[in-house]
Amino acid sequence: MLITFEGIDGAGKSTQVMKLKRYLQERGREVLALREPGGTPVAEEIRELLLESRNDITPVGELLLFAASRAELVQQVIRPALENGNDVILDRFYDSTTAYQGYGRGLDLDMLAEINRIASCSLVPDVTFYLDLTPEDALMRKFSEKSLPLAFESEELDRMENSGLDFYRRVREGYHKIGGENPNRIIIIDALLSPSEIHRKIISSIDALCTKTA
Amino acid sequence: MLITFEGIDGAGKSTQVMKLKRYLQERGREVLALREPGGTPVAEEIRELLLESRNDITPVGELLLFAASRAELVQQVIRPALENGNDVILDRFYDSTTAYQGYGRGLDLDMLAEINRIASCSLVPDVTFYLDLTPEDALMRKFSEKSLPLAFESEELDRMENSGLDFYRRVREGYHKIGGENPNRIIIIDALLSPSEIHRKIISSIDALCTKTA
Repeated sequence: MLITFEGIDGAGKSTQVMKLKRYLQERGREVLALREPGGTPVAEEIRELLLESRNDITPVGELLLFAASRAELVQQVIRPALENGNDVILDRFYDSTTAYQGYGRGLDLDMLAEINRIASCSLVPDVTFYLDLTPEDALMRKFSEKSLPLAFESEELDRMENSGLDFYRRVREGYHKIGGENPNRIIIIDALLSPSEIHRKIISSIDALCTKTA
Repeated sequence: MLITFEGIDGAGKSTQVMKLKRYLQERGREVLALREPGGTPVAEEIRELLLESRNDITPVGELLLFAASRAELVQQVIRPALENGNDVILDRFYDSTTAYQGYGRGLDLDMLAEINRIASCSLVPDVTFYLDLTPEDALMRKFSEKSLPLAFESEELDRMENSGLDFYRRVREGYHKIGGENPNRIIIIDALLSPSEIHRKIISSIDALCTKTA
């Protein structure tokens, strides 16, 4: 199965990825948990380049670099793993592109759909968990998680404050639209629930899906 | 004006680019002659990455990296130069992608058209000179230009021999189809003519175009 996690920074995706990975492994599955961009030698170099050039690159150039990295990861790692019968869990996939570059930054949605299709080689997740959090709650969470001076140094907080709450509001609205258009694939979960409650919802969906496909 | 040159390796593009650049400069024009991939800091890094990873990258990954490099060059160099009233001459542009990756390697032509449109930000050359040469003549030319042992060491010859004549035959057929679909933009010139004859044909087209647009 290909399982993806979506949501704004601070929604708790990486915690849930780890919990789900452990759960599936305990049930005897081989599980690969991956995070874009990166994951192959070429994709790692693209990741470096994206980090280095963050301020010099155009939005379309950035989009195409992300797409190139994704195409490599899909063809060289994800698809072979799925074909070997393993599970793959992704912390972000193409819905992030649509939410951030499309709804957030205003790039053309049809163009993004086309790029997403090409970069993912038409691979569609079996299920996507969208952890829904308001940008305000994401900020609150950051402040309460760390002592105040540390919170101010947090990279994610910086990024969030630099992009502005409005940007994250548009991203969240985007995620809801994407969810509305893909009701069979995307499961929306309230990210304010406790991590173990969220995990329980996730595994009950996964178990239902396994029963359905078995 | 945006002027592009197309054709297989050995057709004499770079000679004609230089000649045309000089001609336009002598007429008082500011001219930028560029070659893809490269031309901006990010695009140069992509170029490095493409050269390094030639054997490890998937065709779609390569396509998207080329596209990212092109998007950077178009937005950061070509479009600003054109907006400043300068001329830009390109040694290869998106027709190369269609001819090589599409007709040559068999990637889906509709996908390529979409990627080309996105990467070039819908910029279309005012005129494209396609220097037409059979792969056999390209090889002959390589052999006669250099002493035989040197010719065997030539990188272009290696590439041509590695890809095989069949590949280059498909590329050439592709160029003819692209030419047929864009009769108003693409001018096909027999690459077996002498460099100065080719140059004369090119400048007469350019002068006609200038008169028409003036």
